[in-house]
Amino acid sequence: MLTKTHLFENRGPDERPRIVIIGAGFAGVAAARALRKCDAEVLLIDRRNHHIFQPLLYQVATAVLAPSEIAAPIRQVEAKQANLNVALGEVVGVDLNRRTVEVVSPGIGVREVRFDFLVVATGMRPSYFGHDEFAAYAPGLKNLADAETIRTKILSAFEMAEATDDENERARYMNFVLVGAGPTGVELAASLADMVRVTLRRNFRQIDPAMSTITLLEGGDRVLPSFAPSLSERAARHLARIGVTVMTGVKVENVDAHGVIAGGKRIESATVLWTAGVAASPIIKLLDVKTDRAGRALVEPFLNLHGWPYVFVTGDTASIQQDGRPVPGVAQAAIQQGRYVGRLIADQIRGREPKRPFRYRDKGNMAVVGRNYAILEAGHLRMSGFLTWLVWVFIHLMALPQMQNRWRVQSQWLWSYLTGQRSSRLISEAPQSPNVAVTAKQTIAP
Amino acid sequence: MLTKTHLFENRGPDERPRIVIIGAGFAGVAAARALRKCDAEVLLIDRRNHHIFQPLLYQVATAVLAPSEIAAPIRQVEAKQANLNVALGEVVGVDLNRRTVEVVSPGIGVREVRFDFLVVATGMRPSYFGHDEFAAYAPGLKNLADAETIRTKILSAFEMAEATDDENERARYMNFVLVGAGPTGVELAASLADMVRVTLRRNFRQIDPAMSTITLLEGGDRVLPSFAPSLSERAARHLARIGVTVMTGVKVENVDAHGVIAGGKRIESATVLWTAGVAASPIIKLLDVKTDRAGRALVEPFLNLHGWPYVFVTGDTASIQQDGRPVPGVAQAAIQQGRYVGRLIADQIRGREPKRPFRYRDKGNMAVVGRNYAILEAGHLRMSGFLTWLVWVFIHLMALPQMQNRWRVQSQWLWSYLTGQRSSRLISEAPQSPNVAVTAKQTIAP
Repeated sequence: MLTKTHLFENRGPDERPRIVIIGAGFAGVAAARALRKCDAEVLLIDRRNHHIFQPLLYQVATAVLAPSEIAAPIRQVEAKQANLNVALGEVVGVDLNRRTVEVVSPGIGVREVRFDFLVVATGMRPSYFGHDEFAAYAPGLKNLADAETIRTKILSAFEMAEATDDENERARYMNFVLVGAGPTGVELAASLADMVRVTLRRNFRQIDPAMSTITLLEGGDRVLPSFAPSLSERAARHLARIGVTVMTGVKVENVDAHGVIAGGKRIESATVLWTAGVAASPIIKLLDVKTDRAGRALVEPFLNLHGWPYVFVTGDTASIQQDGRPVPGVAQAAIQQGRYVGRLIADQIRGREPKRPFRYRDKGNMAVVGRNYAILEAGHLRMSGFLTWLVWVFIHLMALPQMQNRWRVQSQWLWSYLTGQRSSRLISEAPQSPNVAVTAKQTIAP
Repeated sequence: MLTKTHLFENRGPDERPRIVIIGAGFAGVAAARALRKCDAEVLLIDRRNHHIFQPLLYQVATAVLAPSEIAAPIRQVEAKQANLNVALGEVVGVDLNRRTVEVVSPGIGVREVRFDFLVVATGMRPSYFGHDEFAAYAPGLKNLADAETIRTKILSAFEMAEATDDENERARYMNFVLVGAGPTGVELAASLADMVRVTLRRNFRQIDPAMSTITLLEGGDRVLPSFAPSLSERAARHLARIGVTVMTGVKVENVDAHGVIAGGKRIESATVLWTAGVAASPIIKLLDVKTDRAGRALVEPFLNLHGWPYVFVTGDTASIQQDGRPVPGVAQAAIQQGRYVGRLIADQIRGREPKRPFRYRDKGNMAVVGRNYAILEAGHLRMSGFLTWLVWVFIHLMALPQMQNRWRVQSQWLWSYLTGQRSSRLISEAPQSPNVAVTAKQTIAP
């Protein structure tokens, strides 16, 4: 089914095979890198000019790190890989039969790109479970703009609490509510707890930021449901210790400018953050494939779409079962899938048949709960506490993609740890966007 | 004329004197710090929650530094100074007779603040010499949002040049025009020249960024007119060497989305940056005082306004002559003026008469022209070249306000210098602003 002849029937004899990768997250970049020695043309398309190290995004949202410290320009990968081309743009159409994608780029318009192989790696976005109207009041955390939105919202809340004379308003500004106690919710809540107790100390005259309340709401029966129950329990105890109120088994019924209604009770809050569900990015709808409940594409064991041997879906956008359990939507899985697909395509171009289906190797799972505390689960190993936190720090520094970012994050963390200060306490103003206009329709080669 | 009785006639016997400082730039923060041991209440008002190290702003615009690396939260000064209060808001009214200012804060509305002493230190903004319509096409560089706007504009221009098939469009995207060859214009042009030749090397497939043209337009007869003519000449030669085309004696007649008309000639450019004139911030108009041509308030030798012994104007917003020449609008002058006014007020509160009028001590003047080259003028000393550049690096690192920023900038510079890379190559998206509404009118104590 995955044969060479089938793939190359529409190309001229002189052309090299074309591989289009949509999305430059962990999966997309891993796929591109795995193709670096392949005799092909690779086009990596992303809406943004940078890829980000998503596991540390919550630290941008809480002013520990600057946006650029977890980001790297995608084009810089080009400098190291001769067969790679990077295009900035949004994919608005995919035609699997004609093997084309339509890309809209700012200032350029719509272009049509031909492919021999397609890799979709567009990731996830926040899901409001059918209540998209919550989005205006409760931002999610998926990209750098989200992180800056949340940072500005948190810092502004304290400014308003300081400025107002109204006691009720002040209380509302000092209530923070996070919806969803997965890793992002727990990490964000804990980082916020550290911020109000340590970083903002003695920075205000009318309020004491340490008197803020941070409430973490979870629909399920425990925090961090992807971990073993014993670790969830330890994490919940540590959250309570640092001042985070955890409420489990609570469904959010409404979110508006004044707060949330959850479990029938109203919580007044000026800062509601959405760390609950995720849904696949809308591009999957363009593909007309079967999806799971979260909108992820159901893929075959080789990560291709059923009936389309040259179309692959990887990372958070793919839904695949392994040993009766879904492969989790974590960075490790995305990297492994991207690399697998890149190698599989390279093999096929060399005329080799694909060897074995994709298999996720779980190297373990970690979550950090503020400074000094983390939990780790790997096979039967379960750890928590300060040493685990040191392991977390080490692993994340090693995983940062660029030498430069590693240095910077390292020195930021050291300074923040020693002083309690955070270096990116900026209430952002929006920069002007460049004057762009969609013009004509063109055809480009990848 | 500057007497204690006059100042305190409207206050109750138990109240401490109130000092309101508008603007937390170099002058405002210096004034606040000079009042730290004073038995008074100090209120520092700024529209933003951070103050910035303006001399390095051009490096944020060219992706060398992250915004937070040249910024520090104003509130952090509060932690070190018990008599200081910080308010986030915009001053929209000043009544010198009643001694009140009106402040609008996001989410809070208008508040009225009483003062015994007022220090205005609101700085400058770009001036388009009566052509405010140019602003939409040629952003100026005064704050972090401007710097991000310019960075996004520059990086987007290369993306569009790479993506377009139209040769004329491509040329337009690769033409950069800077209007005004003062220090900001020269430093920005030189930094951009380094970027196109080194940083972006091998990052594109359709274009070679090194083929960009960078044109620096100057209305006067030489670049860096605040320096000695011999230094201007050396700087101009170095600019030519690194690929910047300097055109002097050229007036800009028009700026639109397609470029500029200068000296009767049209230059096609998608990226026009305004580094020419500056004008005093609009708050000066609220004061109803005499101003110079640039809108700066004419101040008395003690830096107070004529007829208002308790109202001071400092920094770039003040116009004062010394030995027949205007005190320049540089960071050193702003810091000295702020400190002078702070001490003068502290003296008066202690019942001492002001000693001597303000005198600017010129410690010398520097400008940097790309990596490895700077010029310096101090008294009769004139230096240029690599060693001068090292002096520039050293002085600027020492001047950075916070220990933390010093470390970060130092490591950024070292890395950029060694690798030619720049760490903040982000095309920014606008974060959402928090939901705020102007509500009621309140009176607050500083």
